[in-house]
Amino acid sequence: MINAIGREIPDAIDNYGAVKPFDGAFSTLPDMQRKAPAVKTIRPGQSKLINGLEEAFLRIPVKDGMTLSFHHHLRNGDAVVNEVLATAAKLGIKNLKVALSSVFPIHAPMVEHFKSGVVTGLDTNYMSGPVADAVSRGALAQPVILRSHGGRARAVECGQLKVDVAFIAAPAADKCGNLNGVSGPAACGSLGYAFPDAEYAEHVVAVTDHLEPYPLSPISIEQTRVDYVVKIDKIGDPKGIVSGTTRITKDPVQLKIADMAAKVIKAAGLIREGFSFQTGAGGASLAVAHYVRQMMKSADVTGSFVLGGITGHLVSMLEEGLFKKIIDVQGFDLDAVRSITSNPDHLEVSASFYANPYNLGCAVNQLDCVILGATEIDTDFNVNVVTGSNGVIMGGSGGHCDAAAGAGITIVVANLLRARLPIIMDRVLTATTPGETIDVLVTERGIAVNPRRAELRAQLEAAGLPVMDITELKAIAEKMAGVPKSIPLGDKVVAVVEYRDGTVLDVVRQVM
Amino acid sequence: MINAIGREIPDAIDNYGAVKPFDGAFSTLPDMQRKAPAVKTIRPGQSKLINGLEEAFLRIPVKDGMTLSFHHHLRNGDAVVNEVLATAAKLGIKNLKVALSSVFPIHAPMVEHFKSGVVTGLDTNYMSGPVADAVSRGALAQPVILRSHGGRARAVECGQLKVDVAFIAAPAADKCGNLNGVSGPAACGSLGYAFPDAEYAEHVVAVTDHLEPYPLSPISIEQTRVDYVVKIDKIGDPKGIVSGTTRITKDPVQLKIADMAAKVIKAAGLIREGFSFQTGAGGASLAVAHYVRQMMKSADVTGSFVLGGITGHLVSMLEEGLFKKIIDVQGFDLDAVRSITSNPDHLEVSASFYANPYNLGCAVNQLDCVILGATEIDTDFNVNVVTGSNGVIMGGSGGHCDAAAGAGITIVVANLLRARLPIIMDRVLTATTPGETIDVLVTERGIAVNPRRAELRAQLEAAGLPVMDITELKAIAEKMAGVPKSIPLGDKVVAVVEYRDGTVLDVVRQVM
Repeated sequence: MINAIGREIPDAIDNYGAVKPFDGAFSTLPDMQRKAPAVKTIRPGQSKLINGLEEAFLRIPVKDGMTLSFHHHLRNGDAVVNEVLATAAKLGIKNLKVALSSVFPIHAPMVEHFKSGVVTGLDTNYMSGPVADAVSRGALAQPVILRSHGGRARAVECGQLKVDVAFIAAPAADKCGNLNGVSGPAACGSLGYAFPDAEYAEHVVAVTDHLEPYPLSPISIEQTRVDYVVKIDKIGDPKGIVSGTTRITKDPVQLKIADMAAKVIKAAGLIREGFSFQTGAGGASLAVAHYVRQMMKSADVTGSFVLGGITGHLVSMLEEGLFKKIIDVQGFDLDAVRSITSNPDHLEVSASFYANPYNLGCAVNQLDCVILGATEIDTDFNVNVVTGSNGVIMGGSGGHCDAAAGAGITIVVANLLRARLPIIMDRVLTATTPGETIDVLVTERGIAVNPRRAELRAQLEAAGLPVMDITELKAIAEKMAGVPKSIPLGDKVVAVVEYRDGTVLDVVRQVM
Repeated sequence: MINAIGREIPDAIDNYGAVKPFDGAFSTLPDMQRKAPAVKTIRPGQSKLINGLEEAFLRIPVKDGMTLSFHHHLRNGDAVVNEVLATAAKLGIKNLKVALSSVFPIHAPMVEHFKSGVVTGLDTNYMSGPVADAVSRGALAQPVILRSHGGRARAVECGQLKVDVAFIAAPAADKCGNLNGVSGPAACGSLGYAFPDAEYAEHVVAVTDHLEPYPLSPISIEQTRVDYVVKIDKIGDPKGIVSGTTRITKDPVQLKIADMAAKVIKAAGLIREGFSFQTGAGGASLAVAHYVRQMMKSADVTGSFVLGGITGHLVSMLEEGLFKKIIDVQGFDLDAVRSITSNPDHLEVSASFYANPYNLGCAVNQLDCVILGATEIDTDFNVNVVTGSNGVIMGGSGGHCDAAAGAGITIVVANLLRARLPIIMDRVLTATTPGETIDVLVTERGIAVNPRRAELRAQLEAAGLPVMDITELKAIAEKMAGVPKSIPLGDKVVAVVEYRDGTVLDVVRQVM
């Protein structure tokens, strides 16, 4: 069948089931109740501290076919996923589904678990490295479900992603299972992506290397939902968890794009009291933030909040008083950790608060503007952030399609060529954010505005910005680098790209 | 039938249904799933700000027979319950159930709504004043359900108390429905009792007189659960919300009892590193805290946390470093509001975190000791905190039976005579906390220890404290004041006293 953005998708997919096609960014409404886990009790004096992961597996007990969930705040320093899966393998458990909010190169041992049948399913919002490579080449019989950060929160809360056991990597914990991410050797800041798992999993195991006296404070995840607390030697490697300060790009082309994106924001009238925005942690995104900062200072305006993955750059904007609040679902560097620990205006929020489309309002809905990247974009403004030009999975939506849907103006910044290939095409290889939610594309050669936003195009033109049709930009790129050839792919569906509401945007097919 | 504490209770009660008898403090285990409200959504740009309560009623819409819930943090200064019920009356709505966590004298207008049939059911944890009086005299056809604070959280979370609309009095709010209790003219501190209602009600209406720019911080209740935000002129009268500093009693008999209670704590070996306790806000309870404070200073020990209703007295213990944390479900005075606003070691928690027996561990389970009051106590140590000697309802469990069940040692402090009548009897008029959870009774004439705690009795005797059997204390009281006469009561059940697990401890019958 053909969905609302013209992608041909199967009616049903083996090991996934019937497909509910994407029908527009706000067209599919909820028709269910929230997940209702079994109610439990514990007696006064009963201890949750147990000796190691193996004991947790035996007590629960973890069985073949269960879904184990994990969060990704420890990023490429995470030791918990590998240790839990090694425990499963040791105990001879098979056919597990791993629901890990993002997969990094450090999770490479999972590939062996695919081969041995310990892990046969994967549900994630982003993946890069050996696991993504193996999946692209057909390592799993079941297709991976690729969600957005908000979509995962929705799926957990609404019961489409049924979590049997949530393993929560906790930089700090007390004996009763109160958890936070702000202290201990593996401090990572916000634990926001783990909140829905803690609330809706049937069993919750906190895995920590740092116990504090009861009661821990602050409390990010509450004792009321945690079954067991397991202390291990080391939950992660700080070098992989928090980077040093990410630097603004020095690449002149990227700086030019960033400068133009900032001018788009200004031309749209957003540099005003109460401005709110989200930007990523990459060097080009930081450059946009840098130019916006200068404009806000010149105009002497104070913004309301910044949102998303938080870096020192955004922290310094809070500390300078340029923004009043930070809403933080994930911190990227040590400044973000320091700030969330000490600044009451730096708020830790859940993935559901951040971006779940099926609650009474997530934070992305309040954004004036978001700056996003793209691997490919088509002439309908549909964006691909999942597959590279070779068809291999090298990313994921994360919060991409969430912020795009919520923000007043969504700006994609991208070099016109990527690895010497045009990024604009008639049809992206994988559609992962629908074009109706993308408003502006900014490249070094010009700016394209979605035809749905005629008034915005007029504003940008009035400001003297180099606006053109997206087809014109495409022609410029193709003149420079030719028309990219389509790549041959197999038939097998290796991943299903779900939109944040659970409908299917597209599928990813096996690379040959 | 006869329940586990020997109270004769009906098998079924009109307008209540089948009775599940109390079977022991930890004997009845959960066999249900959590409440699963319908999932909702809201579009970016859609506003929650509406014009007045009447519009909220019409939009939801509120219908005959619904259950409306309220929290009691505005105490005897609350204006929201009366205004909401006046709106219901104006719109001709009938047969509502009011689920208000505590009822105060200011809620007197509810009596008129009983008469007119606007309100025909009441569910509460505590009541005093005209409403309690009217209920005692049979003003409602349906029996009132009297719960504990933990029991109410359980009933909401587990779906026995099904809330159609939660009206949340919010001292501060933003346009998206983020709420807190720490700013605005009606600041009350913690909003802990409202948390379960916000999470599990089918509809949530925030009622505020103080809007702040988005995003509000701190966020106590999240926008993700709030349907509407209604601004009214005044949600409450600060004079009735927060008292000035409550003073320690000057009554020499109460001081003697408090001193003895503190000595019990010391003799039990609890004045040690990590000590935790809960005490009430009354003058006698504060006196116990005062003596404990002196002992802790002398012994140079640091406690872990204090819990419960928070006063300036406990705040100063935190600020002096005598305790490391405060866990706060309700603040009683301006010092408590100031502290929770500014001190990161002062934690706001939900009623479920505080005392719900059906989750994976509430805070009362971590208490070393709790100091409680009693209106009556029987020779099996069952306590009455609901009815006075005339049979009229004048209180409620609140957190009484919760803390008693959780704490390592539960100490009841009481004058041997109350209104010239002995407080110890063979059989309390209404059993509201089971004797198995009460360890020690301290009176001005001596100390009784529950026979279940022989080791504790030996410790107190070894410390030279005046320990005697409870029957001996009873005899002393009766020698002074005679044996209280039993009072004649009607047959009609006006209230059902549910234990925190939802089983029935006792019933209250109509006064003649």
